[in-house]
This record gives sequence, structure tokens and C-alpha cells, in this order.
Amino acid sequence: MNVNGKHYRSIWLHTANPGIVQVIDQRKLPHEFIVEDLKTVSDVFTAIKDMHVRGAGLIGATGGFGMYLAALTAAGQLDSIDYFKAQAEFLKSARPTAVNLAFAVDRQLEIIRRFTASSTLIERVKKSALDIADEDANACRDIGKHGVKLIRDLEAKKSGNTINILTHCNAGWLAFVDYGSATAPIYAAHAAGIDIHVWVDETRPRNQGARLTAWELEQEGVPYTVITDNAGGHLMQRGLVDLVLVGSDRTTYTGDVANKIGTYLKALAAMDNNIPVYAALPSSSFDWNIRDGLTDIPIETRDSDEVRYVQGLSNNSIDRVLITTPTAAVSNYAFDVTPSRLITGLITERGICAADETSIKLLFPEMQQKHG
Amino acid sequence: MNVNGKHYRSIWLHTANPGIVQVIDQRKLPHEFIVEDLKTVSDVFTAIKDMHVRGAGLIGATGGFGMYLAALTAAGQLDSIDYFKAQAEFLKSARPTAVNLAFAVDRQLEIIRRFTASSTLIERVKKSALDIADEDANACRDIGKHGVKLIRDLEAKKSGNTINILTHCNAGWLAFVDYGSATAPIYAAHAAGIDIHVWVDETRPRNQGARLTAWELEQEGVPYTVITDNAGGHLMQRGLVDLVLVGSDRTTYTGDVANKIGTYLKALAAMDNNIPVYAALPSSSFDWNIRDGLTDIPIETRDSDEVRYVQGLSNNSIDRVLITTPTAAVSNYAFDVTPSRLITGLITERGICAADETSIKLLFPEMQQKHG
Repeated sequence: MNVNGKHYRSIWLHTANPGIVQVIDQRKLPHEFIVEDLKTVSDVFTAIKDMHVRGAGLIGATGGFGMYLAALTAAGQLDSIDYFKAQAEFLKSARPTAVNLAFAVDRQLEIIRRFTASSTLIERVKKSALDIADEDANACRDIGKHGVKLIRDLEAKKSGNTINILTHCNAGWLAFVDYGSATAPIYAAHAAGIDIHVWVDETRPRNQGARLTAWELEQEGVPYTVITDNAGGHLMQRGLVDLVLVGSDRTTYTGDVANKIGTYLKALAAMDNNIPVYAALPSSSFDWNIRDGLTDIPIETRDSDEVRYVQGLSNNSIDRVLITTPTAAVSNYAFDVTPSRLITGLITERGICAADETSIKLLFPEMQQKHG
Repeated sequence: MNVNGKHYRSIWLHTANPGIVQVIDQRKLPHEFIVEDLKTVSDVFTAIKDMHVRGAGLIGATGGFGMYLAALTAAGQLDSIDYFKAQAEFLKSARPTAVNLAFAVDRQLEIIRRFTASSTLIERVKKSALDIADEDANACRDIGKHGVKLIRDLEAKKSGNTINILTHCNAGWLAFVDYGSATAPIYAAHAAGIDIHVWVDETRPRNQGARLTAWELEQEGVPYTVITDNAGGHLMQRGLVDLVLVGSDRTTYTGDVANKIGTYLKALAAMDNNIPVYAALPSSSFDWNIRDGLTDIPIETRDSDEVRYVQGLSNNSIDRVLITTPTAAVSNYAFDVTPSRLITGLITERGICAADETSIKLLFPEMQQKHG
């Protein structure tokens, strides 16, 4: 997507030196746009652990490139599967609950097992890293292709008036390799000249909406307005929202959606005001083992200081301010689960389906037998 | 209520010098506890306009004391009704939409009209200012007395387990003269030894929950936990909330509640999880002229920078950080309207009633004929 008019993905190989992986250090956005060089597995570990990169798709792709750097920097250990296994474990430990990270790293390890003795090993691992990234970008592109139809339908219904879409957190291209999940239909609609406007929830505590989604939309020239997380319900009551479009961190095969904390509240307000709610997700975010999201999806709690402090720009440098007393009791749940009854549909790379087991398995028949 | 173990109201006359009105400068809470002297009408104007003091009840009381200072500093104009009318207009212009401010100032002006020629004028205006403050405090005390019954009922139902109450914004004693509205039942329950715990929504954009309500509760020794505005729905889904207790900025005679933006979302989540929602309010917050809150209560929008910036403590001084780009498009609605169908009941100084016209007018029969 566009940054200052130039095309970027969220991760790529250095053009002149393919031994360097480049990412955007997202911690300083929107205040500073910094491209970071990753040259070692340790660089990749830090970038994932300290959230220079975040988002399911991007973490997976970064893990894939991490194993490529492991091969590049293996020196005498290129034929040691134990070396690669240790590197894989190390990378996975950067975000132990990130399913995409484990998946990408293990996929690379499988290539490495098959081609340990081959002189083409490094090239194969490199190609596989690029494939993982491309697959993520392509899935998001296809989510956009399918999702834009929903926006076209609204366009017809609203006969030329602006279509207002509300989104929560950042399910944008910064969270994937390109396009994003929830943002893909938005970017596709904007590219098609449809008159859209996006309400961006700031998304406390980490403000990914205010910091990242707003910045993405601004760079692409998509009209948007940042609002507090409290405001969405009021906007819906006043007829100012036509569609709620969010991502999903984990989706049960029955259609329950675990996403950034606060998603459930917006889905309730949308239901109360007859506004459709769609979760956009690459099918890699389906959990084919969980029937009941409310009881069976574990909800991570994060550092209390994320609630006590807010980070931002002060006197041209990134600082944080304390909003409570230093010792205030605080809790910080990272996700909530929106039950399928509040979700109008799911937008996947294969198409759109209702948020129920039958519809999901019609779209993914190869999963049918798993819970047939 | 308690501050560092000492009893305070939110506004009072200086003990040694009753020509000075004292208030707590709430802008720096919870980081600094500053008592401010108000000596002139101009001091009062600034304190109200720049939100050293805020909250319906406290703004009203401050206006009442403002007219007392107008009399004290009238010099040769004590018998000039035009002087007092000008002072009243000036004071009311500090927060033009604050109903309690206009009400208190006009009540003082009425006293002044009646006793212009009297040598007791100053004493009468002083006594009236104290009365206005006492009436506010007494109404809140009675809200506590009635509301604590709801908590006792929950105590019986939960057979000894902690009762979890969720509140939004600051409807605490800092917003009134004493006790607060939503907090009055909480303080009464705590004083009665009932095992309670309060979830405090931080309440972006101005964070009155994280800054003021949490501080109040901490000073009183009431167990609490600050959460982001996004978290309440998740807590309700997990059975961690027994009661939602909020204030009300304006209540229609049909039971619709206009309160800090985000209240509606919490009421929806409470309904979805069968949790009772009560709004606590002195009857002065009823609007006897409005039938439909959603269509007829005007919703104020405030300065966009309240969303772009967050204020807090940095290196021991109060600072603010920019969380978006400096030019990000932002909107900032201050209130939303929770329709009566989502409100279990209203707690007033006269007692508790259902949020519907019949029940409200049973409790306030003198208003019956107005819309009979």
C-alpha cells in the first residue's frame, strides 16, 4: 500500500541486498516512519517480541523470513537439523500464542528437513519465505475482492450517499503483508471510486486504531474520522454507520469471533440498530477445534501499564503519560469473543459466508469431515 | 468524603475567612490535590469555564457561591439589581448548557431581588448558597440510602461473594457537593460492610473514570479496578459484573438517560447478559419537557484535541501526548442516550422507580399534570 506516495508491503527483502529483511517499525507510527533492517534471527526475535511488527499475518511472514535468515547465517551448521530446530523454537518463543508464527516457522522447518543436504537449501527457504508472504497478501487481496461486493450493495441502497464503515483496532495492511483483512474491502471500494468514509475506533489500550488504521487510511487517501471507543453506539443510533467491518484473531468453526477487546460492544450496538457486522479473515484464522468461543477461547491478559499509561508524541519525541495513580488497580484483557449470533457474515479469501457451522463448512468442505 | 483521611466536600467556605470559597482543582487529579481559593466572580467564572470544577451538582453549587461573592464584592452597587443581573449573565455564560448553573444563579438572583434594600442581603445570599450546596449533598445522601438496598438484595443473592459493580465516567462526589450520584450507593454499601468491588471504565476522552472515580474510591478504601472502555462487555460475558450503576446528565420523563458517551454500549451489554442497569440521579436532572431522548436531547460535541491528545503525568509534571497524527480527522461527541428499555430503574433522592413515565410520575406526582 502507499506510504508517502510510494508502494510498500509491511515486510520485504532489501532490493540491493537480499540478505537483509526489511520491516516497518510500527511502534513509532504514526509519528515516525522507520524502516528497520533485520539481519539475524535475533533481530527477528526482537522485532516480533517487542512488537516492531504485530498482527497475525505479518508475524507469520516475519517468522518465515526469520528461518531464511537462520539458513543464511548458519555458517557451518547448514546441514544440522538440530541447529534449525533450536532456531525455530527460539523464534516461536517470541510470541508463544501466535498461531501463524508457529505455523510459518514449522512450514520452513519442514522444507529444511527435506532439503538439508541440498545445495539449494538457502534458495528454497528464501522462496518459501516469499511464498508465505505472498499467500498472506493474496488472501487479503481476495478478501477485498469478495468484501467490496457488500459495499457495492450498500452503495446501490444508499443511492449515491457516502457509505459509513466502522472498524475497530488495526486489521489493516500493517497487520498482514498487504491490503489487510478488514481494510481490504475498504481499499478495494476506494480504488473503485465508491464514496466511503471510515469511523476508526481508537482502540484502547494500545490505540492501534488511532495510531495505525487512521495512518493507513490517510496514506491511501481514504476519508476517515478517529473516534473514542465509547462513540460507536451513538453514531449507530444516529444512522451514521452503514457497516461494521472488523478483523478476527481466532474464529471458531461455528462462527464465534475472538477479536480485539471491545468488538463485542460494537456488534451489540450494530444488532440493536440493524447494521450488518462482518468479520474479515484469512481462513488461517479459523480454529477447527473450537465449538464454543465463549467458553473455550482463552483470553490473554496483558501488562497493566498499558492501561495506566498512554503513549504518544510530546515535544517531538515519543513519551508516555500516566493517567491513573501509579499504583491504581488495573486489569487489561486483550480480546473478547463476539458470539456468532451477532455476526452477519464472514469475509474470507474464498468468499463470504454466514457465521454458522453449516455455511462455513460449505465454503471449506475439506474441513467437513473433521466435525462431520 | 475522605481525602488523605480528612473529610472534604467538593466546595466549601474557608473556615477562617468566609469571604473565600474553596474548591478542589480537579484538573490535576489524581496526580496533585490542590485546594483553590475563589475570591471574585471572575475566579468562579474561570473555575467553571476551565473545568477546575465540573459535574452538574457541583457546577450549580459553585454558581450559587459565585452570586454570594458578587454580593460580597459589590462595593457601592449592593442595591443595583442591574449589577447583579450582569454578574448572573456572566456566570451563566461560563457553561451555557449547564442547567444546574442557570438554576442556582437564577435562584440567587430571586433572593437578591426580594432583599435588595435589606441590610441582611449578603447574609441571605450566603445562606442561600449554603442551602443550594446542602440540598445537593442531601439529595445524593438519600440516593445512597435508597440505592444501597439494591446492593443488599444482590448480597443476599450472592450469599457472601463479592458484588461487582461497573460504573462509567465520574458520577462521584467530585461531580456533586458530597457522596455523588452513582457512587452514593457504593459508599453506603462500603460503609455498611458489604463486600463490593467496582469496575471503573476509564472513560475516554477525558478519562474521568481513571482519573477521578478511581481516586475517589481509593481515598475511601473501596476496592476497584480500572478498565478500558472496551472491556466491560467481556467482563459481563464472564459473569464478573452484578450491577451497572451510572449517573445521568439529563433524564426524560419517559426514562431515557443521556449520560457520558459510552453508557449506551454498557447498557446493551448488560441487557445481553441479564445484568441490571440503574441510573442514579437527583431529580433536578429530570427534563419534564422531553418525551423522546434519542430525537430531542441535543448532544454536545467537544474539542477534537480531547481525542487527539491524552493528558497525564510525565516526569512529575502534567503533560499531554499526541496519539494520532496532528491533523487526523477526529470527532468528539460528549454524551449518548440510553433508551429507557435498557434501563432497569432510576435511583432518585425520593426512592427507586422503573424507567418509564408512569413510575416516574408516581414518584414525582407534582409533575403529573404537566403531561397528564
